[in-house]
Amino acid sequence: MEVKGIVIPRPEGQENLNMKTGEIEIEAREVELLNQCKDRIPIGLGDHLQPSKEPSRMEYRYLDLRNTFMQKNLRTRSTMVMKMREFLCNDHGFVDVETPTLFRRTPGGAKEFVVPTRQKGKFYTLPQSPQQFKQLLMVGGIDRYFQIAKCYRDESSKPDRQPEFTQVDIEMSFTTQREVQDLIEDLIQYSWPEGELTLPFPQMTYNEAMDNYGTDKPDTRYDMKLVNLSESFSSSGIHSFENTLKKDKGEIIGIRIPKGTKYFSNRELNDIITSPTIQNQCEVTSIKVNDGNSWKCPFQKYLKEETKDKVRSRLNIEDNDIVVLAHGTGHYPHTALGKIRTTVANALKSKGVQIIDEDRFDFLWVTDFPLFLPKEEGEGLESAHHPFTAPHPDDVELVKTHPEMVRSQHYDLVLNGFEIGGGSIRIHQEHLQRYVLTEVLKENTDDLEHLLKH
Amino acid sequence: MEVKGIVIPRPEGQENLNMKTGEIEIEAREVELLNQCKDRIPIGLGDHLQPSKEPSRMEYRYLDLRNTFMQKNLRTRSTMVMKMREFLCNDHGFVDVETPTLFRRTPGGAKEFVVPTRQKGKFYTLPQSPQQFKQLLMVGGIDRYFQIAKCYRDESSKPDRQPEFTQVDIEMSFTTQREVQDLIEDLIQYSWPEGELTLPFPQMTYNEAMDNYGTDKPDTRYDMKLVNLSESFSSSGIHSFENTLKKDKGEIIGIRIPKGTKYFSNRELNDIITSPTIQNQCEVTSIKVNDGNSWKCPFQKYLKEETKDKVRSRLNIEDNDIVVLAHGTGHYPHTALGKIRTTVANALKSKGVQIIDEDRFDFLWVTDFPLFLPKEEGEGLESAHHPFTAPHPDDVELVKTHPEMVRSQHYDLVLNGFEIGGGSIRIHQEHLQRYVLTEVLKENTDDLEHLLKH
Repeated sequence: MEVKGIVIPRPEGQENLNMKTGEIEIEAREVELLNQCKDRIPIGLGDHLQPSKEPSRMEYRYLDLRNTFMQKNLRTRSTMVMKMREFLCNDHGFVDVETPTLFRRTPGGAKEFVVPTRQKGKFYTLPQSPQQFKQLLMVGGIDRYFQIAKCYRDESSKPDRQPEFTQVDIEMSFTTQREVQDLIEDLIQYSWPEGELTLPFPQMTYNEAMDNYGTDKPDTRYDMKLVNLSESFSSSGIHSFENTLKKDKGEIIGIRIPKGTKYFSNRELNDIITSPTIQNQCEVTSIKVNDGNSWKCPFQKYLKEETKDKVRSRLNIEDNDIVVLAHGTGHYPHTALGKIRTTVANALKSKGVQIIDEDRFDFLWVTDFPLFLPKEEGEGLESAHHPFTAPHPDDVELVKTHPEMVRSQHYDLVLNGFEIGGGSIRIHQEHLQRYVLTEVLKENTDDLEHLLKH
Repeated sequence: MEVKGIVIPRPEGQENLNMKTGEIEIEAREVELLNQCKDRIPIGLGDHLQPSKEPSRMEYRYLDLRNTFMQKNLRTRSTMVMKMREFLCNDHGFVDVETPTLFRRTPGGAKEFVVPTRQKGKFYTLPQSPQQFKQLLMVGGIDRYFQIAKCYRDESSKPDRQPEFTQVDIEMSFTTQREVQDLIEDLIQYSWPEGELTLPFPQMTYNEAMDNYGTDKPDTRYDMKLVNLSESFSSSGIHSFENTLKKDKGEIIGIRIPKGTKYFSNRELNDIITSPTIQNQCEVTSIKVNDGNSWKCPFQKYLKEETKDKVRSRLNIEDNDIVVLAHGTGHYPHTALGKIRTTVANALKSKGVQIIDEDRFDFLWVTDFPLFLPKEEGEGLESAHHPFTAPHPDDVELVKTHPEMVRSQHYDLVLNGFEIGGGSIRIHQEHLQRYVLTEVLKENTDDLEHLLKH
């Protein structure tokens, strides 16, 4: 319906001050029926209605978009991205360069979408990111580049992963990690849609994140941190723990679920700790702390009072708590407990126990990632991120002697437990790049010459 | 090389006022060699050098980008696109919505790129334009949408066509052709990188453009307009002309190449007028006007003084001009001369005769396109642009009686002879849309129901 008319005040007594336009109405002069809806509108529209179920909303997406919350999402994104552009392009001298999306395959990395061409046997691929282009732009004298870039990965969808996604893509010459972090913090603050953010964002090293949260993207909106209990169990007399500590040089880690026995049945607890993604590389077990000194766990008959006291004081245990323990080598027990920590927090949320403060936006820099990690399969090392990441300046000498100990100049930005960004300083010395590729990563020399040709 | 130091004035007498930084220099304190170039730089860099040949520039594109003119191109584009966004998003309430690029096939239109998925037999396609999405957004209450959108067409490359290209994509609800034109004019003026533009841009109907320039995208920076000579030849006694006029109801059209005999040899002229793209659907011939009354042409022995006088006065012929004539039916002679007009202008340019004012930016709206055209193959009509274009409001009745005469609400924006944009008002009444599809275009009913389903 298209209506043209004169805006007039509403008749006295008919004003509605709860509406933005509640004091006026339009006296129609021309009315055109643009089109008709055959039946009634098939999904719920209007702020007073519950939104319809997801499948109906998807089928009638063009109607669903009329819902206030959908309008708000689209408009907030538009405004936020616009502010990011103002910040980068107008205020900080970045050049917006649109790079091609039909390009040749890059070896390594994620699985790429291919696009057949009109020439038999020839394919384009859709880019995983504009990585190569932006590095060429740096060489080409565009020393501050940005692009709101579409990226493609032919991987299974997850709730926070889709085959096509968009990233704020930035590259700078002659900079440092801290300068980039400052820039990103200011960029986010400038474009943040509501409320004030506190700058600078907290920093945490990769090791701190693994030790305290069992993940490199910790959600710091709630506590339940990991606690190292190796010392508490070192002379506990419990064989499996002592074996982990002495024979395997591993560790024993625990988390405390406050008042856990009130919220989780034995079966629920068992489901959480025996989930197949967790049990692989370490052993997980649990203790139910009942009233007073009554602790229930598989090894309760070996549990000395002295051990209980040590654990109780390390974890500040109270009645009705649950303690989950993981023991094993390397970061495996941490990773297991990191996953359990998240699962427990979400399970508590679904039970109406709000341990996560949903109003908070906890930004966090995670820094000092390892440059190399043991290969997932076979012997040797592989890049933790990509082979062009520069080593931490204090660790350059270690590249030749102890590559597994080298920290990188890679950093991630985490928000409420999700990795929302990341970056790195690149290696810019040919000899170091060549050493990393040939001596540490043992890359095939032919591929290498291709990569290093220009 | 990374140099840190103190900016100091240059020693007296060593200033160079031609350089922006000619009065200062840096006293280096820290110098770091970032990397080395093995040989000398393989392509010419620097404003005092001629740019290298295209293939070298492509091979070493990351170096070529350092050339001032390349830097200027990239930076001008970035700034101009940014200003367009400011105009649309900040000043005129448009919402920037990023639409998906992995989508299902749309029937009809250009050839599309397909992207195989991980499911056998299932493909995405890359969009020719976000047409469908933006129309859904209109229904969805985003009544002012824009996107700087990447589009894909799997067609052969031409100098002004590539398989992937980017368009400023706009859609508005409740608007008129003139409102959109005003918006686009203001948008271009706001974002134009140098100099003032004169608004509004001139308008020309499709018929005026065809009659005067033989193309729907005329370059108005130079004259050499088409002139209708049917009247001049109507009683010339020259059979082929009289046949075209009387038997075929066709027309005779001419253009004058001022001082053409000085610039074009017989052979060059012949090459231009016998080019295969031109001779197909009409006959093209030429007259060389030598001194005084001596006219050389294939039909010179039939050329009466009276006919010469008529042609001379219609075209304002002077000595040494060349006249190119085309005769045939419909717009074929116009189209042929339109192509010849462009070829001649470019040929003159390459001979150093500047009939095109290269400093001008001639924007032009071409309006009142036909809604339907005779099918290129077979009987009947097809859409001149797409089947959703609305008819001119004055011609709605003609859709049923004389569809071939209906003007559309499609308009193109032309700059210096190139189509740089276009748009249309869409049909919004189901009954009219259905009539156009079934009765005029005789579309398959099944496809139709699919299109009209929602």
